Amino acid sequence: MNQPVDHEVDGLIRFKAQLSYHGGNFNGYAKQPGMRTVHAEFAKALTTVFGATDDDFGMRVAGRTDAGVHALAQVLHFDISSQRMKRIERGPDLLSRLNSLLPADIRVFKVDVAPPGFDARFSALFRQYRYRVSDYDTQRNPLEADFTLWHTRPLDAFAMQGAALELVGLHDFATFCRPRDFGTTIRELREVRVVRTESGVIEIWLTADAFCHNMVRAIVGALMAVGQGLATAAEVATVLAARSREDMFKVVAPKGLTLMQIGYPADELLAQQAVITKVQRSSANFDE
Amino acid sequence: MNQPVDHEVDGLIRFKAQLSYHGGNFNGYAKQPGMRTVHAEFAKALTTVFGATDDDFGMRVAGRTDAGVHALAQVLHFDISSQRMKRIERGPDLLSRLNSLLPADIRVFKVDVAPPGFDARFSALFRQYRYRVSDYDTQRNPLEADFTLWHTRPLDAFAMQGAALELVGLHDFATFCRPRDFGTTIRELREVRVVRTESGVIEIWLTADAFCHNMVRAIVGALMAVGQGLATAAEVATVLAARSREDMFKVVAPKGLTLMQIGYPADELLAQQAVITKVQRSSANFDE
Repeated sequence: MNQPVDHEVDGLIRFKAQLSYHGGNFNGYAKQPGMRTVHAEFAKALTTVFGATDDDFGMRVAGRTDAGVHALAQVLHFDISSQRMKRIERGPDLLSRLNSLLPADIRVFKVDVAPPGFDARFSALFRQYRYRVSDYDTQRNPLEADFTLWHTRPLDAFAMQGAALELVGLHDFATFCRPRDFGTTIRELREVRVVRTESGVIEIWLTADAFCHNMVRAIVGALMAVGQGLATAAEVATVLAARSREDMFKVVAPKGLTLMQIGYPADELLAQQAVITKVQRSSANFDE
Repeated sequence: MNQPVDHEVDGLIRFKAQLSYHGGNFNGYAKQPGMRTVHAEFAKALTTVFGATDDDFGMRVAGRTDAGVHALAQVLHFDISSQRMKRIERGPDLLSRLNSLLPADIRVFKVDVAPPGFDARFSALFRQYRYRVSDYDTQRNPLEADFTLWHTRPLDAFAMQGAALELVGLHDFATFCRPRDFGTTIRELREVRVVRTESGVIEIWLTADAFCHNMVRAIVGALMAVGQGLATAAEVATVLAARSREDMFKVVAPKGLTLMQIGYPADELLAQQAVITKVQRSSANFDE
């Protein structure tokens, strides 16, 4: 094999899975000993279907969401040996099997053999998150309480949008990153949209090549400070430039946050994108 | 006082409250000894604000929802004596006070002195409910699992709409009514719309002057049987005509059901509508 990443290495067949989950009862996506995590539940379902492995089928995820954060379109990959593939030759399709094994707070909506060169994490071009906050004046919908922060003061969505523009672009986001290992805190924040929806809820949509740990919730915290009149857009620009965690605003609660989309390039560029991403940054310091 | 219903009777001031609730942890709306119900929580909040009464402030609700059923726009009224009104002359408004006292799964979005002649239950012209069901082929959203039934087989929404047309109109719905005390099971089902939304979820919107006990969920059960090919529209028409509970289809789970709207006439017709409603039917047999 000459290609650096391939969908079939050493007889392994790579699958791409797209899934949604309610983060409320998970200790986040990433594996942690003794904790209920999305990774652990998914690996358990795969083990039931394909038999035990010692590397959780090489699972890798696009966005390592924190405890309490939801996902509507998470993406992960896993690798299955040709030998194990025999286990799914007959009977229900893999999608049905996984959904029947997974708990109700995780639903897989697509699972297929991945295109050549696909890596759920390193092939990704961008991540998009949505934060929902219902402020003082709006109608609060108890059916949406699990995925909407209820804030007790009115927020000025226009002021928040103005402050967001100070953050858009390629910056060192050290102020908004919770330190984890080594590595760069430079990210390209491509877009932040602050919209008040028809029902009165404020939605903040953020898109970046990737996000460092806590970055989305730290940014939303800064915008909410501006929305309350406790800070100005200029002050947000200043703390960004300071590149110091000490200047940080309050990190908002996880329940308002949902991973909405992972963007990938066209199939023929997947392998190339994975190489570029790996060169740009070491894997150790990235949370996406 | 000559009017049969008035907003200020014997020094009582009538309030109209509009509220939303997540039904999951309630034993329904109606008061039941020792049970957590929406009525009990609301009466408790009123008692904290206005002091104890022995009639729960004459509270009356437009739609007595069952255990597990949600509401986005429930309406109720309650009566406060002029004497007790002094308690809210100063300090935060009544809306803020109630929301600060109520649990997070009940939110009041409007509370005002009611127009003359208003009765939350008897002045109502119609009730509208929505039932959400996600069938086999669609993407299941774990964030919506609390208010969407997950059904394991594909449903034909067009066939369901066709069967629904057999039920629309003024009929004796005895087949679909769980018996409660005495009284008529004649209702006017004004509209049933079965729509598959953009996200793939099927929504069934039902509007009637009022619904008898279990009627919405029994109708949805019949439509789902048709949607699965287990019954035909003609069979639904036949069981309706039979007016017998023995012919009934399965009553579906409450979690997919949400009370969406209570319709009232223009203010000047409120008192008249209440009189008409009371003449049409005794209060004992109505669940709305």
